[in-house]
Amino acid sequence: MRILALLPILADDALESETTRELARIATPNVEYTVRSLEAGPASIESEFDDRVASPYVLDQVVQAEREGFDAVFVSCMGDVATNAARELVRIPVVAPYQTCMAVASTLGDRFGVVTIMKSIVPVFLRKAREYGLSENLAGVSSINVPVLELDRRRTQVLEALVRESGRLIDEHHADSIILGCTGLVGMASTLQERVGVPVLDPTPVSVKFAELLVAARISHSRKAFHRPPSKLRKLADLPNLAGKSITLET
Amino acid sequence: MRILALLPILADDALESETTRELARIATPNVEYTVRSLEAGPASIESEFDDRVASPYVLDQVVQAEREGFDAVFVSCMGDVATNAARELVRIPVVAPYQTCMAVASTLGDRFGVVTIMKSIVPVFLRKAREYGLSENLAGVSSINVPVLELDRRRTQVLEALVRESGRLIDEHHADSIILGCTGLVGMASTLQERVGVPVLDPTPVSVKFAELLVAARISHSRKAFHRPPSKLRKLADLPNLAGKSITLET
Amino acid sequence: MRILALLPILADDALESETTRELARIATPNVEYTVRSLEAGPASIESEFDDRVASPYVLDQVVQAEREGFDAVFVSCMGDVATNAARELVRIPVVAPYQTCMAVASTLGDRFGVVTIMKSIVPVFLRKAREYGLSENLAGVSSINVPVLELDRRRTQVLEALVRESGRLIDEHHADSIILGCTGLVGMASTLQERVGVPVLDPTPVSVKFAELLVAARISHSRKAFHRPPSKLRKLADLPNLAGKSITLET
Amino acid sequence: MRILALLPILADDALESETTRELARIATPNVEYTVRSLEAGPASIESEFDDRVASPYVLDQVVQAEREGFDAVFVSCMGDVATNAARELVRIPVVAPYQTCMAVASTLGDRFGVVTIMKSIVPVFLRKAREYGLSENLAGVSSINVPVLELDRRRTQVLEALVRESGRLIDEHHADSIILGCTGLVGMASTLQERVGVPVLDPTPVSVKFAELLVAARISHSRKAFHRPPSKLRKLADLPNLAGKSITLET
Amino acid sequence: MRILALLPILADDALESETTRELARIATPNVEYTVRSLEAGPASIESEFDDRVASPYVLDQVVQAEREGFDAVFVSCMGDVATNAARELVRIPVVAPYQTCMAVASTLGDRFGVVTIMKSIVPVFLRKAREYGLSENLAGVSSINVPVLELDRRRTQVLEALVRESGRLIDEHHADSIILGCTGLVGMASTLQERVGVPVLDPTPVSVKFAELLVAARISHSRKAFHRPPSKLRKLADLPNLAGKSITLET
Amino acid sequence: MRILALLPILADDALESETTRELARIATPNVEYTVRSLEAGPASIESEFDDRVASPYVLDQVVQAEREGFDAVFVSCMGDVATNAARELVRIPVVAPYQTCMAVASTLGDRFGVVTIMKSIVPVFLRKAREYGLSENLAGVSSINVPVLELDRRRTQVLEALVRESGRLIDEHHADSIILGCTGLVGMASTLQERVGVPVLDPTPVSVKFAELLVAARISHSRKAFHRPPSKLRKLADLPNLAGKSITLET
Repeated sequence: MRILALLPILADDALESETTRELARIATPNVEYTVRSLEAGPASIESEFDDRVASPYVLDQVVQAEREGFDAVFVSCMGDVATNAARELVRIPVVAPYQTCMAVASTLGDRFGVVTIMKSIVPVFLRKAREYGLSENLAGVSSINVPVLELDRRRTQVLEALVRESGRLIDEHHADSIILGCTGLVGMASTLQERVGVPVLDPTPVSVKFAELLVAARISHSRKAFHRPPSKLRKLADLPNLAGKSITLET
Repeated sequence: MRILALLPILADDALESETTRELARIATPNVEYTVRSLEAGPASIESEFDDRVASPYVLDQVVQAEREGFDAVFVSCMGDVATNAARELVRIPVVAPYQTCMAVASTLGDRFGVVTIMKSIVPVFLRKAREYGLSENLAGVSSINVPVLELDRRRTQVLEALVRESGRLIDEHHADSIILGCTGLVGMASTLQERVGVPVLDPTPVSVKFAELLVAARISHSRKAFHRPPSKLRKLADLPNLAGKSITLET
Repeated sequence: MRILALLPILADDALESETTRELARIATPNVEYTVRSLEAGPASIESEFDDRVASPYVLDQVVQAEREGFDAVFVSCMGDVATNAARELVRIPVVAPYQTCMAVASTLGDRFGVVTIMKSIVPVFLRKAREYGLSENLAGVSSINVPVLELDRRRTQVLEALVRESGRLIDEHHADSIILGCTGLVGMASTLQERVGVPVLDPTPVSVKFAELLVAARISHSRKAFHRPPSKLRKLADLPNLAGKSITLET
Repeated sequence: MRILALLPILADDALESETTRELARIATPNVEYTVRSLEAGPASIESEFDDRVASPYVLDQVVQAEREGFDAVFVSCMGDVATNAARELVRIPVVAPYQTCMAVASTLGDRFGVVTIMKSIVPVFLRKAREYGLSENLAGVSSINVPVLELDRRRTQVLEALVRESGRLIDEHHADSIILGCTGLVGMASTLQERVGVPVLDPTPVSVKFAELLVAARISHSRKAFHRPPSKLRKLADLPNLAGKSITLET
Repeated sequence: MRILALLPILADDALESETTRELARIATPNVEYTVRSLEAGPASIESEFDDRVASPYVLDQVVQAEREGFDAVFVSCMGDVATNAARELVRIPVVAPYQTCMAVASTLGDRFGVVTIMKSIVPVFLRKAREYGLSENLAGVSSINVPVLELDRRRTQVLEALVRESGRLIDEHHADSIILGCTGLVGMASTLQERVGVPVLDPTPVSVKFAELLVAARISHSRKAFHRPPSKLRKLADLPNLAGKSITLET
Repeated sequence: MRILALLPILADDALESETTRELARIATPNVEYTVRSLEAGPASIESEFDDRVASPYVLDQVVQAEREGFDAVFVSCMGDVATNAARELVRIPVVAPYQTCMAVASTLGDRFGVVTIMKSIVPVFLRKAREYGLSENLAGVSSINVPVLELDRRRTQVLEALVRESGRLIDEHHADSIILGCTGLVGMASTLQERVGVPVLDPTPVSVKFAELLVAARISHSRKAFHRPPSKLRKLADLPNLAGKSITLET
């Protein structure tokens, strides 16, 4: 069985290494993991805008992965970037980590909390929980307000912030499990779990093992929910206002 | 007041004309309407894949519209293409017609139905209704199964199918109003309303007047729901597997 | 187009002037606004009891308005006094401002808050949000505890209380927009919006422009939701325990 | 203990007799039942308009009942006419039969159905179920389409229609109990229950025994949900468009 | 009419006396109350484990009660121990006090709170509210953290804790009525009600009067919701790991 | 890794063999599966009564399994027999197959259907979906009405009934995936999936792989949702009315 962990962002060596290390920890014989990033797209996903900019490149890579014979793809970002659209294009399972973690956490207790990185992405978590029909068990979403690209540099500070925000979700909002709301936090779940005393879900191992479950159980997404798009003209060309290597937005 | 009706698809003369005709019907002094289409993107929106392919071009055009001084943008497609991401990028109202029609229909009765064109897009309507927190009033979604690009050629057949599917939603699912689930059906609401005896919402006039309402009431989308994306590297480049003028998918 | 703003209370000069001033601000050519109050009924709406006392007079006026040729009626009180019953009696749109503001706010973000005047009316807002099927997006309802009839005399104090209660709804309940929960607060939305940084909906301009939208889109409430009442004996006569100019209730 | 069954309509001898007969059947020592109708108001409740026309007279009578020393009032109509407003005015329990039957049916199974008389009142049942927060267990509402005032004349036809509509709710909508959606159907529950094989709730005995429960348990409605209305001017006077003995509405 | 109050625990003299005293207070002629406990089972119900250990003995007693001619059984514990299974076995009403109190509280206001004894049972209240389809009106569940078996010894401390936790539910979670979340608190509702100013439901009188209501209205649970179990082999034998008079679990 | 598949029923050779065969199909190196049944309890689970009769024996076995060093237990019956109580007693994951299948199906589409064996167990599926907070995605539950103990003898008839009932859920209730509602149907998912064209979840492989996921991700159920029961007297003794090898209930 071959599973692709696709990071829907421009290559980030530190994150790729951390992801590879975690996958090595959970490896089983017969399963082969591959980690890839995008050659174009955003440096990180912190908005619906980033999600839309990354989408064509994610779709391109998922189509490529199926052609290469991968058995499942895990789009490694809690924004579940383009996963619905990708499911329309391929037959192999496309694992959306936020959706997957919510589903798994629903079996561990009554109400899960999500701790993410940037405050700006919090509303997206609420909207996606609703879209997936899983919001009844969502106790709340909190953020530690550290930019994704600074995660690596500030590990200790990040852990303390995770403990604090998880504690708030547990005490004030009655969360009984915690979902790490960013795949960039890979590898921190066990330590956090010991600190806060409730199950902590790291999206990387959870999603990859979920992919293995789907392949073993011979099930994938439903064609009644994700229909095959018809063939027709779809022009892909320049973007006068968005194009260019770095987009600057004035507030 | 200047309002842009942006069709998130490649230019389609017939649709642009119909849209312009309907806007002329509801025109008021002091308001100026402009109709535009995309120069790149899909020929029509019939899947989440189409939505993702169109998104960068829609965002590009919305940013451009704000720079040109438009007071509001109406993204004229019931898929509400990239409207959340667009709201992150601009301050002027970005009207999402499906969301708007659901909100308006909520004030006309207890349960609205949606009749759209292609069966393949039906699940997207359900998911978006949930995402918007408006699914409690959704009686059901039905389709007439005519490809968008053949709508114009088959107007009579389309009307009879709309009457039949609306009737089913009213009789079996207790819908008390009907939302036309495709902006390509522009101009057909009044005739359908007479035939089925409940209010029928045409997304084009409803959305444009809703844009005027927001401008007059001096309100726009919330920055607490649609945060400003931070500046950072976002590379836009070629798509080896998706690129090319026409994308063909084998089923 | 002629629209009636009907205040479902005994005439109050200050409120009529404020309403007229706000309507003048949003006036467009071709639309004519009329402001009226009741000749009998309660001095203000602060309970379900007031709502019931006002109802026959509101219904009487709405029937009269349709006969006079008005194109729509806006019942200018956030209690949405007798609007469902009125819709049974007439074909022209009867705009219920609380329902309308909730519908509009649903398109500006994910969760709106309501700030009203008297604590005693707070439960009514919750119950009506549920009745309308719009409670999923309701973050919370708060009050400033100033009697409606003293609003005019205490404008500065009112503004500070609105800022404080809006802030609480935004910070603690994650509201991303604010609905002014009393039409007596007409004209204060813009200042409040500047102070709290999220969209603030003033029911008067929102409802009147919504009425214009419905007329322009040629839609009104559904006869499947608001059936025509059959003719039969309905006696209207004296009320031994409630009648009299001023009703005093001992606590 | 003294309980008032208040029919919120003009006196109807047949209905008063049937109600009295059913109350005699369930009578216990120590409890005294009184049946009253209105001296003004509508001949029957078949719309929200009827509900609003009846409301002042119902409120007047409930205030009177508390003064006379009744321990509880049951407003005997499934429209729950003015019960919320009445609770604001008095301290004794005001039993709303539709709300009560839904609460009781929630303990007998998972999903109740409602069979009422006129199709025109069906939407009101849906809206009130939502308002009360009890709609999750509502399987559906159906009607037999017999005017209330003809119920007595057409008993056999009514029973067969009740069997048919109850059967539909049970088979197609998975209702596991049936609520009789009109107090005019008093006395028919046992026969219907035998015919359809699921519990059938007659609002009259259920509500009256519920009133006894509340009095025995020394609980009544909450002042936090139904605040005491402040004293102020409430003028009650003529209604030029609605007044007169019989109101005729053209469709 | 004969009603059995079955305490699903090993006999506890103090609790039986308190229950008998409260039943005496609400007694009416023609109704005879019997109080019984289990001869085997747990000393108290403070977990789902206790509930499962008690279940066979409760079912045994309910079957016995029907054979003895009781008209209804009230399983006197807020865990609603084995009530669904018991309904499958008998035709007489089996009153589940938590479900019943939630149903009754739904008619007294918009949102009830529950104050129970041990923190460990709090999640069970949430899960059962959902199962019953009554969670929309549940404001929150709180606990005073006194073991059930120490309730009697610490009455004053218990009352103050009830006042404090009820107050928190009222002020912070907008509860407008309070349900006592343990039948061991029998007899304390009136005092608490005076202290907190909202209705307080004592499950014992509420449930017993509810049983009388069902018998009087000739309704019981639905066979469509609680099917009769088929006859087949069900072996009852020793439990090597759980058996023994006292089970000790290491944490 | 060692995983116990515990059948909460009296030993059934055919079922144990089928289960073992399916586990062999999905086996991976490093994971060892054990299949066990109960020595006492019911012959099958077809009611809440069966569930309660089986519970003490299931709990006994789960406690034993943890002592023996198993890494997870899968209670192999779609009634999720005693899984909540079992989680209170042990630290290793206790996989509840119905809950798990609902969680997994939530990631494959928008609405799953359940096809079970006996009509009598259908309401239990609805109640448990609500309890788990997963009912929003439940399209419906259907049954083929074959007693569990005759499943093996009537395999062809069973398949055709599964195709028919799945088709009904897909066509009429918009299910886009199907959950097999009985672990006795083990091994039939792939054939059914080919016939109905949507994903079909067999609880056995799904649950076992889910157990592996939890162990690999180092997470188990939350102690905040499933508290450790305190030590105290819990007597286990004879059951005069239920005991005996075969319990016969008259309808």
